[in-house]
This record gives sequence, C-alpha cells and structure tokens, in this order.
Amino acid sequence: MRVAEAEVKQLAESAIAQDARAGARLITLIESGASDLYPALSTLYAAGGHARIVGVTGPPGAGKSTLVDQLIAYYRAANLRVAVLAVDPSSPKSGGAVLGDRFRMSQHYSDAGVFIRSMANRGALGGLARSTPDALVVLDAMGWDIVLLETVGVGQSEIDIMRHAGAVLVLQTSHSGDALQSVKAGLLEIADIFVVNRASEPDAQRTVRALREMVHVDAERRGEAAWPVSVCETEALTGEGIAALAASIERRFTYLTDNPKARAQLRHMQVRVHMEAIAAGIVAARLTDRGGAGAPGSDVVADVAARRRDLYATARALVGGDD
Amino acid sequence: MRVAEAEVKQLAESAIAQDARAGARLITLIESGASDLYPALSTLYAAGGHARIVGVTGPPGAGKSTLVDQLIAYYRAANLRVAVLAVDPSSPKSGGAVLGDRFRMSQHYSDAGVFIRSMANRGALGGLARSTPDALVVLDAMGWDIVLLETVGVGQSEIDIMRHAGAVLVLQTSHSGDALQSVKAGLLEIADIFVVNRASEPDAQRTVRALREMVHVDAERRGEAAWPVSVCETEALTGEGIAALAASIERRFTYLTDNPKARAQLRHMQVRVHMEAIAAGIVAARLTDRGGAGAPGSDVVADVAARRRDLYATARALVGGDD
Repeated sequence: MRVAEAEVKQLAESAIAQDARAGARLITLIESGASDLYPALSTLYAAGGHARIVGVTGPPGAGKSTLVDQLIAYYRAANLRVAVLAVDPSSPKSGGAVLGDRFRMSQHYSDAGVFIRSMANRGALGGLARSTPDALVVLDAMGWDIVLLETVGVGQSEIDIMRHAGAVLVLQTSHSGDALQSVKAGLLEIADIFVVNRASEPDAQRTVRALREMVHVDAERRGEAAWPVSVCETEALTGEGIAALAASIERRFTYLTDNPKARAQLRHMQVRVHMEAIAAGIVAARLTDRGGAGAPGSDVVADVAARRRDLYATARALVGGDD
Repeated sequence: MRVAEAEVKQLAESAIAQDARAGARLITLIESGASDLYPALSTLYAAGGHARIVGVTGPPGAGKSTLVDQLIAYYRAANLRVAVLAVDPSSPKSGGAVLGDRFRMSQHYSDAGVFIRSMANRGALGGLARSTPDALVVLDAMGWDIVLLETVGVGQSEIDIMRHAGAVLVLQTSHSGDALQSVKAGLLEIADIFVVNRASEPDAQRTVRALREMVHVDAERRGEAAWPVSVCETEALTGEGIAALAASIERRFTYLTDNPKARAQLRHMQVRVHMEAIAAGIVAARLTDRGGAGAPGSDVVADVAARRRDLYATARALVGGDD
C-alpha cells in the first residue's frame, strides 16, 4: 500500500494532537505494511517517550481480558488516559477482531480516555513482531499515559513482543503445573510481575507458593541490584487485588526511574530490537522489489533457488554490504 | 566468535566429503553466531539441493521422538543415510541436550549412516529461526538422503522453522480437542501430512475423523492442483503405520517433482525466508559493531534511546539505503 506523504504527515500531526481516528488510521497503515511511513514515524518517535507500556501475557484462559478491563477501570478512576494494544501472533489467518475487543468495547466504548486496538498476524513472517513497536510509537506519541500491550500465548513471538514493555505481567491460571511450564517457556526471564488470577480457586495457593519459591531462587542468581519480581493475587471478576497489582506496576516504573543503569539496559535492548525490526522490513520490501515480478531472467530469488546464483552473496547485497 | 578462513574452508570440504565431525563443528559455529562463515556456506550451498527435508512438529507429548526413531529405523532399513536436526525454540535458556537425544543416540549411536544434532535457543532474538536454514545447508551438502527437522511446540517460531521442509508432518495426540487447536495455531496452513499417533487410544478415531473433515473442507478452498493433505495413523511404540506414513512422505516429494509450479513456489518462499534470515544476521552484527562498546559519543543505540538521534533514519542507514 502506498499513501501520499502529505496525508501521512497530516495523520502524524493529528495523532500527536490526540486525534484518536488519526492514530487508528496510522496503526492500520503500519499493520498493512504501507511504505513511505518513515518521515511520519520519525516525527511521532520524537514526540514520544512518556507512555508507560505495561505488557500483559499468559496462556489462553488465564483471564487476561478481564484483568485488562479492571486495569483500564483502575487507571481511568485515577484520571489517566489508557490505550490497549492487543496483539495476537498465534492467529496467522484470523486478521479480524480478536481478544474479545467487543466485550471490552461495550464497557469503555463511549470513553474518550480509552483507546482499544487489536492487531493479528497477516501471515508475513515475523510481521507482528515487526509492526508492534511502530504501533507503540504511535500510541506513545498520542499521549496515552498507560499503554496496555496484551498478547495471547506463551511462545517466542509473545516474548519478543513483550520486550517492548517497561513492566511485563505474566498471568498464571490456578493449575499448579503452570509455574513449571512458565519456566520452560522462558516466561521467568521476561516476567516483572507474576499474576495469579482466580486466586481463590482450590489450586491457586499452591501456584502462588511455587511461583514465590521460583522467583526467590531466581533473584539470588540475578543479584541485589535487579528488579525484585513480585507475585500478585487477583480476582479479576470482582476487582480484588487490582489496586495492589497497580501498586506493584507503579513500583516497577519507580525502580526504572531510580536505577538509570537498569533503565538504560532496557531501553538499549528495546531500541536495538526495534531497529532490527525496521531493517528487516526494509530488506523484505527490497526482496519484493528486486526478486518479485519481472522478466524471468531478473528474478533473483528464482536464480538462487536454481543455484545459478549464490544465496549468501545475494543476501549480503540486499543489505548493501560486503561483511 | 572469529574463526580462521582456512579452517572453515577445510571444514566445508570435509563436510562435503561426508565427514560427520566436520559437519557437527560447522553447525556449532553457526549456532554460536560465528562470523566469516559466508564463503564456506556458499561452497556448501552450491554442493547441496538433494536432501529431502522432512519436518516433524506438534505439541509436547504427541510422541515426536518415538516417531522420529521409527522413521530413522525405516529409512536405514532402506539403506538411506539419515540426519536429524532437533530444534527447540521454546527453551531460551536450556542451551544443552534437548528432545531426548540421549535416548535416540543409544539406539543409533554406532550407526555411521545416522547423524543426530540438536540446537536450542541461545537467547538471541530470532536466533534459531536464523541459524536453522544455515544448519540445513550443511546437512544437505553432507549428502544425507533424508533430513528429519524436528521442533517442539506449536508457536510461530516452529511454523517459521517448518517452512524449510519439503514435507511437513504435524503430530496430534489422541485428544479430540487438538484438531481445533491445530487450526487456531495455524498448523493447518503448514501441514502436508497429519499424524495421529497412539491411534488405538479411545479418543483417537474422533481426532482422525475431525482432521479428515477439516482437511477435506480446506482442500476445496485450496483447489485441485494443491497437494492433498493426508491424515496418517501410527503407533510409534510398535512401529505400526510407519510404512504407510513413509509412503505418504514419498508421495509428497513425488508431487513436488511432478508439479514444477508448486515446487518453484515452495523453493521461492524458502529462499526468500533464508535470505531475510541472513540479512537479519548481518544487520544484528553491524548493530553490535557500531552501537556496542566504545566511547559514549559513538554509542548509536544510546543516542537513539535518548532521542538525540532518529530511530528510523539510523535503522535505514544500517541497511545502507534511503528507501
């Protein structure tokens, strides 16, 4: 998709002026892989840096949607402007409304202080991991105080997406085996706060104890200066425990403010991952331009596939280098 | 890791001459992200193109290891040389032996016609999806007739890795809900052959019927020229159904031989994905060189993180372009 530069420039300015429709349109353009967005994204990036990005992930059925709803209500009561970006990397073909948007929208639909948006995988390799940080740049520039970044599932894609959050909440169901699954799935590495939802269910206390023990052991490995991962208990249906969870999230951001080194490390990793995503998008576009339609002789990819042309030299040429 | 060019060249030549130790060493270098491997990989790529790469994926507990063991035994009885590459994207931190190598090695350890190797995620973003196709280039050049490419799990990473196989087997347990889960996880899009293992268990026939119905509906959408996805039943513990499964795999490769257009499409996608992976590796290395250690003023990433330097312009400069 190609869009006029003037139109995109106008959209960026409107988004910075908190025009929700302009922001939504920009995210749609990002999701569709529109080219020519860079000048606008640069403008938006320069305007941002203030939003608190809170990641929410965990297995299906852990109660993420309900929890996100409660967090929206909590932050709205504190008069903060809240955006939700719900990313579903596990649905390569759905492409439509996901993650119970409609349910949530029914509650917050008429509230101009809430913005809810979902993105699903449109089949491109690594597509969502590439477009998510750009979408966050838009939301950040729009001046939302809190951005709730929600993913479904516990795979590598979800972990990659969670890297862009300043505070990562990993939800657990009350099944006692889940603590171990979290370790296996690498969630212990990315969790800033574990949340055991439906904490009153029979097995929940065992899960809480298992997580606390796990977090304790891991803290010794990480050392004193590291963020102390916490374990929160909630009943998202009733709202119990939400205030304590919000306080834990607040402590996480205070920790980042008070620890310049930890904050710099996090920002460094996020910028690096985002730059790699932008570069990957450019490479993919070049491959389409150079190796796509055209005379048979000019089809670079077909020549490589037939081993008439060297794969590695061609790939290096794509990034304009000889390293 | 830097290695001498002469040493790598020698390793490539030895691997092409079917020296298993040289091949194993090259895969270790690829896994560790060694630089300076391109000339050797080009040599290996030119020597390959003959191996049949059979992907095997599915949820944990579906019996992949046992099935792979049976397939090894089947192909060895037919006097074919077999390599196994077991990739575990879900273990960012394990880094060691995965997927029951030891069990399998006990059975095939002394057989020079079998090569078993595992790779685990070493924490780099997209690291395994990047290194897997290079490792397959090594195995292909080594002249293995069959390469069994095994992954654990059903996430986007596993799907990305399976793209490099010519025939993709998706295992299902006998739980009847799994068919639907497969659709949700996008496995229907990548499966060439569904395998219901432990087909004699109570719920298995319902799963088989559900898969057949699903595959039937999907076939109408794909059209007549498309590969007809099959559903095989096995008892990997006893070996029942393995010969029929192997025949189904054989039909898949015959289909690719007989349908140049389908084969070209598959190869085109694989080459494209591989070139993107190579380009991504180069970009990551450049970022480390340019934005890593050094005087504070030269730290590009830190400048971007502090918004003193534009994120998008810097990322575009990384790939040497102004598009």
